[in-house]
Amino acid sequence: MHVSFACLTKPILHSYFRSSCSWRVRIAFALKGIDYDQVPVNLIKDGGLQHTEQYKAVNPMQQVPALQIDGLTLSQSLAMIEYIDETRPGPRLLPDDPKERAQVRMISDLIASGIQPLQNLYVIQKCGTDKVQWAQHFISRGFEGLEQILKQTAGKYCVGDEISMADICLVPQVYNAERFKVDMEKYPTIKMINQTLVEVEAFRASHPSCQPDTPDDLRA
Amino acid sequence: MHVSFACLTKPILHSYFRSSCSWRVRIAFALKGIDYDQVPVNLIKDGGLQHTEQYKAVNPMQQVPALQIDGLTLSQSLAMIEYIDETRPGPRLLPDDPKERAQVRMISDLIASGIQPLQNLYVIQKCGTDKVQWAQHFISRGFEGLEQILKQTAGKYCVGDEISMADICLVPQVYNAERFKVDMEKYPTIKMINQTLVEVEAFRASHPSCQPDTPDDLRA
Repeated sequence: MHVSFACLTKPILHSYFRSSCSWRVRIAFALKGIDYDQVPVNLIKDGGLQHTEQYKAVNPMQQVPALQIDGLTLSQSLAMIEYIDETRPGPRLLPDDPKERAQVRMISDLIASGIQPLQNLYVIQKCGTDKVQWAQHFISRGFEGLEQILKQTAGKYCVGDEISMADICLVPQVYNAERFKVDMEKYPTIKMINQTLVEVEAFRASHPSCQPDTPDDLRA
Repeated sequence: MHVSFACLTKPILHSYFRSSCSWRVRIAFALKGIDYDQVPVNLIKDGGLQHTEQYKAVNPMQQVPALQIDGLTLSQSLAMIEYIDETRPGPRLLPDDPKERAQVRMISDLIASGIQPLQNLYVIQKCGTDKVQWAQHFISRGFEGLEQILKQTAGKYCVGDEISMADICLVPQVYNAERFKVDMEKYPTIKMINQTLVEVEAFRASHPSCQPDTPDDLRA
């Protein structure tokens, strides 16, 4: 048996309790049953601690999450999740079948590229129009497309009946949608899958309401 | 030898000559030496042909590219590229080493999630501020982070000395940056890698200036 030294060191996740991309990685760790340390990066305090020189050395993009694992420093949550899946035992986060894996990546990217960046704090702060309307517009636009796609791919979860990276992306995005008061009744498939997933222990344990940096007044 | 029927059908790429996400997939096909058909979707004509009922049946997100391959219909360019890489012979578009693969995905996602969506036509059309300044802001912000990351990962190309999905994302993003007159002198590593890549035949053959739907006045 080969266990490299690096693997014996606990991964360190630089994160913020309410960041949906941070939550994705927390779900992945929870599903795999992997112990890790969280280093909170407060995105609000003093204009955002992600802009400090100290944090820029970890992630030059000045965003959370960032992950230090096996001597590697990664930004971008989907790259982290695929790496965790490829190097750790436990339930697979991507299916073995190439076609199903492509569907999982399509849904993950639809959310990670097509929705989340457009309703991110640093983008809506810059838009010259009403911030809530801006976020609602881009989340609704994405969910309209996603709803149609899920009708073709979903079983109990986003792709078939196994939890995958697509589900890991879905739940935090629905959480954001609810914060922006998007009417989820328009997306019955998304709503139903989300309702099933939020009851799963890995999604509950990683929820923004119960992280080390969750403020007391927002704790569940 | 097992060759399924589906693999004998040429893949169909629904694309637009100037779409940077379409270009990514064209590069992947060219690097792999795979023959495919292009169906042009004019994003400008009549308010955008991606909004027709006919195209929405192909891609409910009403975006290009969409890919019909092996009986599967995919949206999201990175999901397409990973699928092409996993199912087709030819040069690998992702490295075998998990750590290098994670770096390739990190850089690809940085561009595909962190830059491209924010300077996309449908987003800058909606921003209430100056459209060119908006695009310049988000491209520059992304390139500042990317430049630092590439200093650690790059060899001749984005990750080491082999062309990968990260390079496939880089070149179309630099093309967009140049269209929006971003000062590339600030990003010497990005600029150098891009200069090397644009001379590679697969990148030249797939360039927006020489596609079936390129207007005559924009042809190289």
